[in-house]
Amino acid sequence: MLFDTVCVVGVGLIGGSFGLAMRERKLARQVIGAVRREETINAAFQRGAVDNATTDLAEAARGADLVLVASPVGQMKAICEQLGPVVRAGAIVTDAGSTKDDVVAGCSKCFGQKAFFVGGHPMAGSERTGVEAARSNLFENAIWVLTPTADTPEPVVTKLVAMIEGLGATPLLLNAAIHDSLLAVTSHLPHLTAAALVHLFSDAHSEYEVAQQLIAGGWRDSTRVAAGSSEMWRDICLSNTAALTKSLDDLLEQLHQLRHMLQEKDADKLYDWFESASTVRRKQGYFPRSTQ
Amino acid sequence: MLFDTVCVVGVGLIGGSFGLAMRERKLARQVIGAVRREETINAAFQRGAVDNATTDLAEAARGADLVLVASPVGQMKAICEQLGPVVRAGAIVTDAGSTKDDVVAGCSKCFGQKAFFVGGHPMAGSERTGVEAARSNLFENAIWVLTPTADTPEPVVTKLVAMIEGLGATPLLLNAAIHDSLLAVTSHLPHLTAAALVHLFSDAHSEYEVAQQLIAGGWRDSTRVAAGSSEMWRDICLSNTAALTKSLDDLLEQLHQLRHMLQEKDADKLYDWFESASTVRRKQGYFPRSTQ
Repeated sequence: MLFDTVCVVGVGLIGGSFGLAMRERKLARQVIGAVRREETINAAFQRGAVDNATTDLAEAARGADLVLVASPVGQMKAICEQLGPVVRAGAIVTDAGSTKDDVVAGCSKCFGQKAFFVGGHPMAGSERTGVEAARSNLFENAIWVLTPTADTPEPVVTKLVAMIEGLGATPLLLNAAIHDSLLAVTSHLPHLTAAALVHLFSDAHSEYEVAQQLIAGGWRDSTRVAAGSSEMWRDICLSNTAALTKSLDDLLEQLHQLRHMLQEKDADKLYDWFESASTVRRKQGYFPRSTQ
Repeated sequence: MLFDTVCVVGVGLIGGSFGLAMRERKLARQVIGAVRREETINAAFQRGAVDNATTDLAEAARGADLVLVASPVGQMKAICEQLGPVVRAGAIVTDAGSTKDDVVAGCSKCFGQKAFFVGGHPMAGSERTGVEAARSNLFENAIWVLTPTADTPEPVVTKLVAMIEGLGATPLLLNAAIHDSLLAVTSHLPHLTAAALVHLFSDAHSEYEVAQQLIAGGWRDSTRVAAGSSEMWRDICLSNTAALTKSLDDLLEQLHQLRHMLQEKDADKLYDWFESASTVRRKQGYFPRSTQ
């Protein structure tokens, strides 16, 4: 068994799936959930995501040799400030946040020399939220980023890597800032764009009833992620602001070029622009469209 | 039987699926394919999409009481100019193009009083192309737009509606210009955005290998449509330029507002912006994410 007591802070989709998987794969003797709302205690227990849960963070974390903070990114620093004084000496603390640079900077310093904070990002999720959506195979075949720093002891990384592999995921060690700039492109900006497309759709209100009938699979896929948690995405924006602004500017530049091609009715440039995108996209694999 | 001889011009995904479905559902005595390339004759026949096929458009269309033009939008006018002199008197000609105003204007006048052109748009498709991807159930439960004008005789519309219902699809009668402005929002702009996001991804070339590992289901769904046919999307841009430019400007406006919220780190406005998108998107149904 890799860990004795694991504490999961935030038993939602990610935290709940982590608890389920750690228990099912017997990677910890017990999993204790720390939750915000009283009613989640029962839900998490019923779902089999935890052996025990409480709204008392200190009580949940006190005996743990591993703590996973699976809360929205905006709460992580405040949670780590609470964890700092109560965690066991030598405990490993990691997180499941979608941004890393800002999170690692804010959280690491809460533990001083007493415990070890290593940033993490399991690249798994869903537009669904809550422990009800948790499943024990969520991380299987997923990339799980770790962002250790020069200060992180080797055995701490080794242990987290073993845990990730034990969960059926693939560990990827990465610099936190590089993680953030790449994720801005591969995840955060696509989300912003999806939300913007939904806004355009809902602004077509005079024809809203007809517009609803003209939604095709393409729109559904393009905007699926916009159904996600607003709290999570607000926090990602506030945490990864610089990289996201840079990517947004790159997108605006692309769209302005495209607008120019449209105005000029430049058939050749339009074809080339679509063709180079299409070639790159095809290399990343075909996938079945969502159900109509 | 609704039709005696149906001619399908362009036996790709849409034309091939139409041929398959018309034959399987016995809505026509025979389906004749008109194809651009010699090798498609055999492929279309093997696939069961046609009873016969030829590269000679006039020969294919001569005896038909229904012609479906399922070519890229940019070729439709030229095809109808060729069809005009050869179609039977009283024949119905329709199309499967993704834009309507420009297509109907260009094609209608090719037939004078001799035959009846009615714009059509079956809202079905895939990022895959070619007759190999054709399937007889492609139109089942799909919306199939028809854009008759004041000049279209009632019995012509009735017959096309019967055909659409016979194919298991739902007919939707719509003004061509309204179709185009709504489709700009629900289909064309999402495609442009997907292609732009893929360009951003491929521009991250210094970290390309790592970026590929950081692609998640969200990116795959958001960009799936960008794997589609460049010819088709170029033509859509050239045909629906005005409505698409208007929608693109609305998107740019949304993204500029968003950029401002990012710069101001305006947590409340960001939350509200995501939340209103999320609320609208959820109403359009949850859909399983694409396979990782």
